[in-house]
Amino acid sequence: MAAGVIPLDASLYGGGSVVGYKEYEGPLGKLFDYYNDRKNDGDLFGQVSFEGAEAQMQHMALGCALGKCALEPDALDAVFAGDLQNQCTASAYGLLSYGVPYFGLYGACSTMVEGLLLSSMCISGKLMRRCAAIASSHNSSAERQYRTPLGYGGQRSPTAQWTVTGAASFIVGESAVGQVQIVNGMVGIVRDMGIKDTSNMGAAMAPAAADTLCRFFAATNTHPADYDGIFTGDLGCEGRAILRDLMRIEGYDMGDGYNDCGCLIYDNEKQDTHAGGSGCGCSAVVLAADLFPKLQRGEYKRILLMGTGALMNPDSIKQGRNIPGIGHLIELRAPQNV
Amino acid sequence: MAAGVIPLDASLYGGGSVVGYKEYEGPLGKLFDYYNDRKNDGDLFGQVSFEGAEAQMQHMALGCALGKCALEPDALDAVFAGDLQNQCTASAYGLLSYGVPYFGLYGACSTMVEGLLLSSMCISGKLMRRCAAIASSHNSSAERQYRTPLGYGGQRSPTAQWTVTGAASFIVGESAVGQVQIVNGMVGIVRDMGIKDTSNMGAAMAPAAADTLCRFFAATNTHPADYDGIFTGDLGCEGRAILRDLMRIEGYDMGDGYNDCGCLIYDNEKQDTHAGGSGCGCSAVVLAADLFPKLQRGEYKRILLMGTGALMNPDSIKQGRNIPGIGHLIELRAPQNV
Repeated sequence: MAAGVIPLDASLYGGGSVVGYKEYEGPLGKLFDYYNDRKNDGDLFGQVSFEGAEAQMQHMALGCALGKCALEPDALDAVFAGDLQNQCTASAYGLLSYGVPYFGLYGACSTMVEGLLLSSMCISGKLMRRCAAIASSHNSSAERQYRTPLGYGGQRSPTAQWTVTGAASFIVGESAVGQVQIVNGMVGIVRDMGIKDTSNMGAAMAPAAADTLCRFFAATNTHPADYDGIFTGDLGCEGRAILRDLMRIEGYDMGDGYNDCGCLIYDNEKQDTHAGGSGCGCSAVVLAADLFPKLQRGEYKRILLMGTGALMNPDSIKQGRNIPGIGHLIELRAPQNV
Repeated sequence: MAAGVIPLDASLYGGGSVVGYKEYEGPLGKLFDYYNDRKNDGDLFGQVSFEGAEAQMQHMALGCALGKCALEPDALDAVFAGDLQNQCTASAYGLLSYGVPYFGLYGACSTMVEGLLLSSMCISGKLMRRCAAIASSHNSSAERQYRTPLGYGGQRSPTAQWTVTGAASFIVGESAVGQVQIVNGMVGIVRDMGIKDTSNMGAAMAPAAADTLCRFFAATNTHPADYDGIFTGDLGCEGRAILRDLMRIEGYDMGDGYNDCGCLIYDNEKQDTHAGGSGCGCSAVVLAADLFPKLQRGEYKRILLMGTGALMNPDSIKQGRNIPGIGHLIELRAPQNV
C-alpha cells in the first residue's frame, strides 16, 4: 500500500475564485467569480497591506464557494487551508471569522491539491461529511517575501514564473450523482534533483511530478491517453517541457491533453509573464474557473490534476541547499449523468 | 457533526525523540532517545547551520521511531510533518531521504497533535495502514527568524517562552491490543482574542485551547476529573494559569491532573526559561519521552493532549495584527491489557 493509489469516494460541490487585475486580463479573465477590475491599485481588495489583501481573497473565496452550495460555515466539519506567506498567515487571518475547525497545510504550490486530497480522504473515510479546501497567493506579498522589494525592478529570468494573485476554495462532500467525482488520489514524495536556481522552479518540481505520475500510471495500469486532460500546477512552460521529456524517458507520451495551469492563466507573450504563472493560487483558480466547470458540463470526462510544490525557503537557498519538489495527484471525473 | 468529536480507532506504536543540551539538562533530560550532551556547541547535530540541525533532528526522530517498531521507511503510507521554519523547510529537507509520501503541515506549536490527528484519521478511515507524524523546533533557528539576531542579547519578558530544541516522531497504525490507543480527536478553531504581545503567546493561545476543551467536554459529557491527565502544549506557565481561569469561568475545574508540556520540560527557575518551553518540538518530545511511556506502562489510563499554536508571523505583528491561536485535541488511552 505504501506509495500507492488512494481510492477516493467524494464529490466536489462548488468552487469559488478571486483574482487580481493581471489574471483578469489573462485568457481566463472572464471566468473567475471575483476579480479586481482596476489596474494599478495593487490588488489590495480594500485592505492596507498585500498580506491582508491575500487573507481577504481567501475569505471571499470560501464565502463564494459556500454561497454557490447554499451552505452556512457551520455546515463544514473542517477547512484545509494554506498559502505561501511565512507561517501561512493568509489562511489563518483570512478564515478566522468563519469559526470553522481548521487544518493548516504547507505544500507550496501543491497546497490546493494537498487540501483536496485530505478533504476527500476525510469524506471517503466517513470521518467528515463536508469540508472545504482553500489556497491562495498574492504576487506582491510573494515578491517581497521571496525575492526583492517591490520597487527594486530587477530583471527577471526567462525561466522565472509570475506568482498569481488569486485564491480559490472548494466544497468537498459525500459522493453524489450529478456532482464532479474525486475518485483517486496519490500523495507526493519529496524529490531533490539538485536544482538550485530559484528562477527555474519548473525544473525543480518537474521530477517530483514525473515521479508521482509514473507511480500512478503503473499502479492504475493507465496511460496519459486514457485521460481527457492532465494538468500540472504550476510547472510553467519550462517545467512543462521538462516533464514531457522526463515522462518520455519513462515511456509515457504526455500527448496533447497535457497542459500546465501556469501556462493557461496568462498570455505569456503579451503579459510579460515569462515562463507562466505560479503560486498556490494558480492551480487553485484555474481549477475553479476553468477545469471544474468543464468537468461539470461533461466537456472533460476524466482528468488528472497534479499539484506541484517547491519546498525551499529564501534562507535555505542562501545556505546553499537545493530546491526539493513535491507533486500530489487527484483524479477527477465528470458527474455520472452528463 | 460540525465542530464535533471525531471518533478514532488507531494505535500509537512507537515514538522517537531528539533534543538539545538545555532540554537534556531539564527535568526530563534522561528520558529522551537522543540528546546533545555537549554544552555550548550550538546543538548543531553535525550540520553547518541551525536550520540544517533542525532538519537533521527530524531525520533522527523518524529513524528512531521506525527503529523502535522494527520498520523500514517503505512501511509508511505517509508522513505528516511540520515545523516553525519559514515554508516548513526542516521537515522537507529532514525527511527527504526517506522517500516517503509526504503531507506538509503548518500548525505552529500545535503541529504534533495536528499530525497525530490526521494520521489517526487516515488509519481510522481505512485510507492508510501506517503513518508517521513528526514535528520539530530549534531554539536558534526560531530565535533568529522570529525575534532578534542570536548575538543581540535582548532582555526577555517574564511571560516569554523558550523555544525547545527538539524533534519527535510517532508511528501511528491500526488499533491493536497492547498498544496505546488514540480514541477521539477534535479539530481546533482559530480564535483571536485581541492579544498582540509576542512575548505572551500563552495568553494568545489559551482562549483557543479553552474553546476546544469546552467543546470536547460538552460533546463527550465528560469533565477534567474523568482524565488522569490533561496536557496542553505549549501554553507555558502564564498560559496555563490563564487556561485554568478561562475554564473555571466555563464551569470546569482543571484540577491537579492538568499541566502544560512547556512547564514540564524545563526547570524554569534554574534554567532561566521564564514562562517555560514552546515550539513544535516541545509537546512532541514531552509526549514521546514522558507521556507516551507512562501510557504504555498504564501509569496513565486516559489522557487528553491539546496542541496549541499561535498563527501569526513577524510581519503580521509589525503590520499591527493580533495573534490568533488554535488548539487541536486527541484523547489517548493506555493499552487494554495494562
